[in-house]
Amino acid sequence: MSSLLRDLCPALANKTYFNYGGQGPLPRPSLEAINASWQRIQELGPFTGAVWPFIEQETARVRHALAALCGVGPHRLALTENVTSGCVLPLWGLPWNAGDQLLISDCEHPGVVAACQELARRERLEIRWLPVLELCRNTPQSDLDDAVLEALERALTPSTRLLALSHLLWNSGSVMPITAVADRLKQDSNKPWLLVDAAQSMGSIPAEEAAAAADIYAFTGHKWCCGPEGLGGVALSERLLEQAQPTLIGWRSLRHEASAGSSFHSDARRFEVATSCLPLCTGLATSLELLAAAGTAEQRLERIQAGSHRLWQGLQTITGVSTLLPEPPRAGLVSFTLAGLPSASVVEHLGAQGLWIRRLDDPDCLRACTHITTAEAEIDKLLEALSALA
Amino acid sequence: MSSLLRDLCPALANKTYFNYGGQGPLPRPSLEAINASWQRIQELGPFTGAVWPFIEQETARVRHALAALCGVGPHRLALTENVTSGCVLPLWGLPWNAGDQLLISDCEHPGVVAACQELARRERLEIRWLPVLELCRNTPQSDLDDAVLEALERALTPSTRLLALSHLLWNSGSVMPITAVADRLKQDSNKPWLLVDAAQSMGSIPAEEAAAAADIYAFTGHKWCCGPEGLGGVALSERLLEQAQPTLIGWRSLRHEASAGSSFHSDARRFEVATSCLPLCTGLATSLELLAAAGTAEQRLERIQAGSHRLWQGLQTITGVSTLLPEPPRAGLVSFTLAGLPSASVVEHLGAQGLWIRRLDDPDCLRACTHITTAEAEIDKLLEALSALA
Repeated sequence: MSSLLRDLCPALANKTYFNYGGQGPLPRPSLEAINASWQRIQELGPFTGAVWPFIEQETARVRHALAALCGVGPHRLALTENVTSGCVLPLWGLPWNAGDQLLISDCEHPGVVAACQELARRERLEIRWLPVLELCRNTPQSDLDDAVLEALERALTPSTRLLALSHLLWNSGSVMPITAVADRLKQDSNKPWLLVDAAQSMGSIPAEEAAAAADIYAFTGHKWCCGPEGLGGVALSERLLEQAQPTLIGWRSLRHEASAGSSFHSDARRFEVATSCLPLCTGLATSLELLAAAGTAEQRLERIQAGSHRLWQGLQTITGVSTLLPEPPRAGLVSFTLAGLPSASVVEHLGAQGLWIRRLDDPDCLRACTHITTAEAEIDKLLEALSALA
Repeated sequence: MSSLLRDLCPALANKTYFNYGGQGPLPRPSLEAINASWQRIQELGPFTGAVWPFIEQETARVRHALAALCGVGPHRLALTENVTSGCVLPLWGLPWNAGDQLLISDCEHPGVVAACQELARRERLEIRWLPVLELCRNTPQSDLDDAVLEALERALTPSTRLLALSHLLWNSGSVMPITAVADRLKQDSNKPWLLVDAAQSMGSIPAEEAAAAADIYAFTGHKWCCGPEGLGGVALSERLLEQAQPTLIGWRSLRHEASAGSSFHSDARRFEVATSCLPLCTGLATSLELLAAAGTAEQRLERIQAGSHRLWQGLQTITGVSTLLPEPPRAGLVSFTLAGLPSASVVEHLGAQGLWIRRLDDPDCLRACTHITTAEAEIDKLLEALSALA
């Protein structure tokens, strides 16, 4: 099934691709569906009474599919342009008091960190860091969940009002125990909000429980879900919907879009803004259907792991290569370093051979991702090329 | 030339279309260019060293084209998802003090008004209204600019910190004297910011002078520019770039995207957020080239006016019809009422005949738009259908 998906992706036909965590390939049927969606809009509309049912249908189709992946009702799912919008729009709508503390893991994406820093500047909040990177590097998988919870215990203070923690860390590739963390935060008298960057988890590991447990679970469709760039979503908790104000406000946030005196939608749509690109909804819905046809989330993760384990194990045999994690990763991100050659040069050398991995700044390392479309032969080819460079 | 453009728009082939102010038709070459852009990304990328030059080229292409239309350097042009993002992202980044007054025209779009109201709630600002609708209804065109400037004079107070005024009013269809207003505001000791909603002006009337004079000139590509939905832009003044902080922050706002400690871009990119849909840049650039091939902005406005004048004059001859404006409009929006039938029913009746206009809530009226693609025969068909309903 997944070899079928592979054959549907033109991007995979002419290169050996390991940057799924940067952007996933767009299957041909998804691009065709996007194109057909645009043609249908032109046929019925673009701005007519005849086109609205189609627009509502395609919006509802992707909203329901994403909500199901998040284990929440569609009323808790807002569509966004990207992960950052999904994180920041609800974050900036929460009620803050000067002196509140934001606890941010040291493995969060620079975009989310910068947005938290700007929020802190405006609302006079304090930023604290939750150290997880060193835990990931040094703790066996079986003990990592406990180690993260212990670090959280040490970091929580009476002023902690939010924790920002990715579900699947973009640099180390470790899976964070989001549901256990959510349980712990709920026991806290302060009930800190839980913001989860799900850029790497959605479409690569089962997200249902974590997404339903978080207050903000923000993701994009264009990485592991293999949808088009420019469309993502965020699952929001009931208490967030009750307590947060919309941030960027446009006609889509309003209950009565034509009236300035309108109240906001009571559901997650209050965090949607204004006109966006409808055909992307059709495209992402198509990609999600292709993924579902390739197996359940659990089955797909098994296949992803088969690839990442093969890669991780192969890396152990190359002199000069060190993997960031002490054991094979639980998902599809494999980070490592290669002694003696700057990581940018490694990326360039491999790229010249049509092999695509990326480098990360913090920590300075290389990252290769395996998806369900990754062939064993591709992994072996990467290992050979790295051996030749080492 | 414009009849050529008309032939390139599938949306115009099977209906009589007057909702350009809601959404413009997407020409076939633009959709083909979008499709080709996506294919190129898959061929080169989607996330490889080989794809960045293409992405930068297509982004620069549309940024330069839009900046030229705005009479500003490309460093003053940020790409946004829609008009609302373009208005609100810089607006929320301005330095505010409790008690500052926002002066908002009574013809602004509900989305912008709601965003100003939420900003006022958060920053404890005061909202004042600039009455222009009655002036539009009752003042001859030759006196309207002066009347608006006089109303502004009466409305300004020592606490006015911002004026929100559309360039082309979405409800009455009147053109506002933005450059004169900007000159007046610059003389004010308080130097209020000028936020211009350009949703209806960009692509329909020459925007260069007004856009260069405003602090925030926000528009979309999917209305009069006939680009795809989901991409717009905003021209920002030099002093805004100096004084405003980014709002939604993502990797595209950062000078060094991979580093959380990065400063923001000093140019307009500080108001861009994160991943958006690159092929839309290719699509909008293509549509802008098609428009340019149809004539200069002035030539195209003449053709738009020829249509709106024919429509406005025809409406005068139908019993029961009243136009909002006392004279033919200076652009392509024609608003009117029809006595005896609710406006929603008029829209429905016309829609059943394949004739598409829209209704507005405030004031309750009907609106038909003419673009360069509008044929005289279409206008006559609309007039006949309205006569039959009246």
